Amino acid sequence: MTVHLKDIAAYTGVSIKTVSNVINGNYARVGPETRAMVLAAIEKLNYQPNIAARQLRKARVGVLAYAIPDIRNPYFTEVGDIMTRVAEEHKYTLLLDYTYGPRDPEPEGKIRYNDYAYGSLEKELSVIKGLRPHLIDGVILDPQALTIDDIKMEEVKGPLVLVGERLFGAPFDHVLIDNVQAAYQATNHLLAIGKRRIAVIGSQETQSQAPSLRTQGYSRALREAGIEVDESLLISGGYWHRSDGANAMRYLLSLENPPDAVFCFNDLMAMGALSVINAAGLSIPDDIAVMGFDNVEEGQYAYPPLSTVSPDKEEISRLAVTSLIGRIQGTRTQEPERILVPFELCIRASTMRNRANVQTPI
Amino acid sequence: MTVHLKDIAAYTGVSIKTVSNVINGNYARVGPETRAMVLAAIEKLNYQPNIAARQLRKARVGVLAYAIPDIRNPYFTEVGDIMTRVAEEHKYTLLLDYTYGPRDPEPEGKIRYNDYAYGSLEKELSVIKGLRPHLIDGVILDPQALTIDDIKMEEVKGPLVLVGERLFGAPFDHVLIDNVQAAYQATNHLLAIGKRRIAVIGSQETQSQAPSLRTQGYSRALREAGIEVDESLLISGGYWHRSDGANAMRYLLSLENPPDAVFCFNDLMAMGALSVINAAGLSIPDDIAVMGFDNVEEGQYAYPPLSTVSPDKEEISRLAVTSLIGRIQGTRTQEPERILVPFELCIRASTMRNRANVQTPI
Repeated sequence: MTVHLKDIAAYTGVSIKTVSNVINGNYARVGPETRAMVLAAIEKLNYQPNIAARQLRKARVGVLAYAIPDIRNPYFTEVGDIMTRVAEEHKYTLLLDYTYGPRDPEPEGKIRYNDYAYGSLEKELSVIKGLRPHLIDGVILDPQALTIDDIKMEEVKGPLVLVGERLFGAPFDHVLIDNVQAAYQATNHLLAIGKRRIAVIGSQETQSQAPSLRTQGYSRALREAGIEVDESLLISGGYWHRSDGANAMRYLLSLENPPDAVFCFNDLMAMGALSVINAAGLSIPDDIAVMGFDNVEEGQYAYPPLSTVSPDKEEISRLAVTSLIGRIQGTRTQEPERILVPFELCIRASTMRNRANVQTPI
Repeated sequence: MTVHLKDIAAYTGVSIKTVSNVINGNYARVGPETRAMVLAAIEKLNYQPNIAARQLRKARVGVLAYAIPDIRNPYFTEVGDIMTRVAEEHKYTLLLDYTYGPRDPEPEGKIRYNDYAYGSLEKELSVIKGLRPHLIDGVILDPQALTIDDIKMEEVKGPLVLVGERLFGAPFDHVLIDNVQAAYQATNHLLAIGKRRIAVIGSQETQSQAPSLRTQGYSRALREAGIEVDESLLISGGYWHRSDGANAMRYLLSLENPPDAVFCFNDLMAMGALSVINAAGLSIPDDIAVMGFDNVEEGQYAYPPLSTVSPDKEEISRLAVTSLIGRIQGTRTQEPERILVPFELCIRASTMRNRANVQTPI
């Protein structure tokens, strides 16, 4: 006997729509208990979704979108490049939906999470609501401006997977690295090479006014080394571009007691910092060591080559695309989860002089 | 009396479809004489196209696509970034349609124009045929793989504008700089600072087996200076990435008589070349001067900052988007034209030591 949606609905006492939502991974509209009950019934009754029929009914278009917050930041384009290839392996086309926009005005009395971000809240909202002007089956979003309060789950259209270090607590699969641990290890490396006055470029307060995850890891490492965090060395990164890193570095060099190391929260800002230190005739890493974050290709070719935190971009991209396709095709039915991807420290000559200056390109 | 399409068709003796093609700028399907006749009739009869009605009838979606050949090359993402903003000013959304692909196999006995290119012929063809899986009103294409022989005009879907230095002779608006002149001036600059043994990275033969435009400009400058072109100094650039520039530079340094300057046909390859020269402990520009092409932001922050040819990317992007919108809206009705955009030499410390090492960021 073939089991249909209506049989599961009758067995569990919920609507056919609810059963369908569970099968299609639209968990936003289904409470956890109902979801568990429906999934149990599916197993018990041995329901076999007719993939082909569902495919037709849902008129899938074979298109995914990666909502890319800043195409001028190579971290995002390197990830988008890999996602495009992974999507193609699965016969999907990946569109790049560029959500950059002017910074949104801050609502009265509220500090926006995107105090520094480049993503436009309006565009990110239109992405999750399916209002962008093209047909897509699902979205990968690296949220920059959105906060959990902005998301009305009943408005969310279709499967969505998050990447990056923001927007925790939303009921979507979320692929990311452990940012606290990564910053902790990077700071420990700077301590291990003898640096004591370590500045941060890219520090900012987050939605909750708590320090960002990376700032937390940095602070923990200092604390464990018995060094007090000097707030005057925590510099905001503006838009996290090269010019922001350069401006911040110029300011740090102008201090009466400048830092002996700088930890930039992305590689682009580190490129700006390197250029300012080089132009000042100071020695890297002896006078000032520089550590980045992202391992974009550009850092390998910098002078000196840039030490950095290297998230596994291949794995981030692959898991984001395959999780999304799993939700779209109904093969991924577990509750949304946070998927941690490995990272490693990539140590080059900007922190250790004896490292080869030019590494083998990836 | 309101003049309708059928009145113009009756007056000129062509079909209503042909009149419509002329008005909508679909010149691909209309010969030049017919076009001239219809345009004359439009003027004579004082035809006022009902923009709103046409808009409805054509179900425009307010979306343009920029077929971007390589999102890992910042030249394209910087242009895409500007195009996105210009499109928004005109109330259009710009999608990035990434046409990168594995190199196409070469048809028997034919040297492909894209001997080095990253764009996939198959994807570029599907872009111009409107087969990509989304609704768009028009396309901006930077062709890498397509040749004029690949284009069957009757298959071309909707308005199309070309950018970049390839695919001449196709009946589309084409926005570009004078590549011969740009390379000529860049080479003259290297000659002016006393260099005589100037290598090229990124040289390759084109479809017709003629030297590329940039190689032509380089050769002309050498010839005028009484220097013979040394074929052994013309190095292919592979995929024009940083690693290709680094590999080419390693090869050049291994020569018995290495060059005293290198002209890289894009900035990415120049970044690779700089890193190899720095790692070899040679002095830039005294031992080897380095000149790039594109003026991507990265070059400003290089060590030393990179001299380069700077195309007016703002103007390229603006003209590409507005020409395309003009074709879509029927306000641009002249024959397709080649639109030359200015460029300038941007001289920094990689060719002239006395230049400030860090320029003001754009």
